[in-house]
Amino acid sequence: MEVNIKRLAEELNLSIATVSRALRDSHEVNPETKKRVLQLAAKLNYQPNPFASSLRAQKSKTIGVIIPEVDNNFFSLAIKGIEDVAQEKGYHVLVYLTHENVIKEVEITRLLQGGRVDGILMSVSSETAHIEHLLELQKKNIPIVFFDRVCEALDPPKVTTDDYESGFKATEHLVESGCKRIAFLQISNNLSIGRKRFKGYTDALEKNQLSFDESLLIVGTKNEVENYAAIKQMLTSANPPDGVFASVESLAITTYYVCKEIERKIPSHVKIISFSNLTTAALLAPSLTTITQPAYNIGKEAMTILFRLLKKNNYPYKKHVVLSSTLIKRDSTSPL
Amino acid sequence: MEVNIKRLAEELNLSIATVSRALRDSHEVNPETKKRVLQLAAKLNYQPNPFASSLRAQKSKTIGVIIPEVDNNFFSLAIKGIEDVAQEKGYHVLVYLTHENVIKEVEITRLLQGGRVDGILMSVSSETAHIEHLLELQKKNIPIVFFDRVCEALDPPKVTTDDYESGFKATEHLVESGCKRIAFLQISNNLSIGRKRFKGYTDALEKNQLSFDESLLIVGTKNEVENYAAIKQMLTSANPPDGVFASVESLAITTYYVCKEIERKIPSHVKIISFSNLTTAALLAPSLTTITQPAYNIGKEAMTILFRLLKKNNYPYKKHVVLSSTLIKRDSTSPL
Repeated sequence: MEVNIKRLAEELNLSIATVSRALRDSHEVNPETKKRVLQLAAKLNYQPNPFASSLRAQKSKTIGVIIPEVDNNFFSLAIKGIEDVAQEKGYHVLVYLTHENVIKEVEITRLLQGGRVDGILMSVSSETAHIEHLLELQKKNIPIVFFDRVCEALDPPKVTTDDYESGFKATEHLVESGCKRIAFLQISNNLSIGRKRFKGYTDALEKNQLSFDESLLIVGTKNEVENYAAIKQMLTSANPPDGVFASVESLAITTYYVCKEIERKIPSHVKIISFSNLTTAALLAPSLTTITQPAYNIGKEAMTILFRLLKKNNYPYKKHVVLSSTLIKRDSTSPL
Repeated sequence: MEVNIKRLAEELNLSIATVSRALRDSHEVNPETKKRVLQLAAKLNYQPNPFASSLRAQKSKTIGVIIPEVDNNFFSLAIKGIEDVAQEKGYHVLVYLTHENVIKEVEITRLLQGGRVDGILMSVSSETAHIEHLLELQKKNIPIVFFDRVCEALDPPKVTTDDYESGFKATEHLVESGCKRIAFLQISNNLSIGRKRFKGYTDALEKNQLSFDESLLIVGTKNEVENYAAIKQMLTSANPPDGVFASVESLAITTYYVCKEIERKIPSHVKIISFSNLTTAALLAPSLTTITQPAYNIGKEAMTILFRLLKKNNYPYKKHVVLSSTLIKRDSTSPL
């Protein structure tokens, strides 16, 4: 038999309201009664129903963080930033993983419509091309803040890095290091951050009188074997690239393995730069030049904005906060 | 106003039971009525309450995976194994992160008592020294399977690797490579896997007539700066180790950075071996010798056992499945 407030009330011959007040440590209940309620609750291992209590309080003091994947360090760091602010403000954080799967993303957003969380921080799955499930959340008045992988079509506040400028900067860095044929590796055409980085790349090529060659563009899949094969084919082609710009770190790592197998030397044969928060970037042979995003601060900023939305106070906040990434030059792009 | 079954029933002048049946596409409701219900549900953006439906059906077809952290690749791979089996069996997977924080772990287990999931796969937080919250889950008859970081004191099925044997093997490998003073780095004394690896280490020392020196044992914290300082102090002491065995990969990476700073050469000055599923292990300078756990298979095995528990069929299963890890020799432990 379920141990709920009703059962406690029956066993103690008290009203449900009195038991409920006693459990909330209300001053309206006399200490003797309170003690009886708490003793029985402990004896029967009573667990408050978190959903019922949330419905009553209209606040779960919990926020949901929906992220695609955690293979890279970016999201671990962003979560740390989110949790540091959340803890300070008295909020709990629940993390949900979509694994870049839009069906799972829809499923999670549906679950969260049930009042489980007060607000949501979200980095969209790479597959997320339709947005109905996000519109539904908005209709339910659950505040959302997007971070890093944002949904451009929607109105909620966004926290991103300067993806266009970073894409431009990374490409120019390869040009300055002597590259003439620069490949671009990304994982999806559906992400605005990928499109912005790509635009920065093509604009930097144009500025430097280099033409964009479609055979140097690889759009990776979730299948690592396929990605490996595509990169290997490109690097062993008749006219291979002398520079590789990876929009995600997993493709940079794959490129390192391909170079190892085909004995292509980094940086003398091919130079590599990657968006990355990899903890081992400086330890690789050779060390990897990175565009490093301020992941911790992105998380902090996103949670700070969400907190303001939840408080419904009138602190002004920017609709789109853009933080700067840092180019960290290492051996993988050394000029000859 | 909340759009629930009651409201739909009122607006359509139907009974709640009829609306409920129509939404479940029951044959008992005539097609015309069904159509009216579905049209109004669509118009008002009706969302079924997932908790209420689960309570009725007594099955959420969802399992919860509770893991401490995702800084390393082990858990990403284990989740892939879990999801592959879950998908095949028609189950959804929700991943919850504890961040090695026992308070968060208790919070998550409490939430899951509300019937959100049919079963739980769990790798305990390093802080988990008390087990009341796990006993509560058992009382609620929610099946649990532990994997990797198991709770030895509890009865539920466990899937682990051969931590003692691997600890022994890693230490013997360092001895065979010429090490005489071998340090052991771990993150917590509360984890059974840490204790087993440590026992393997001390037994291998003893077998090789090497004595255990307490100054060569480092128990890391969540504070990376502290860990860095502790490892640096050990390596710059008057009598430093000539071999380092890291029980977790983050401490091996920190050791690499310390060696870089103090210009201690790996493997000529100090050799390093680590438990690790790091994707970049073979790309490091020098490449890192690892004890690699079959993370994907651990996840697969754990989900398979949980599925059997959920089906309550009488397929026999082992209470404790032990899979073997693999020693992958690379340059960080090359003999001189």
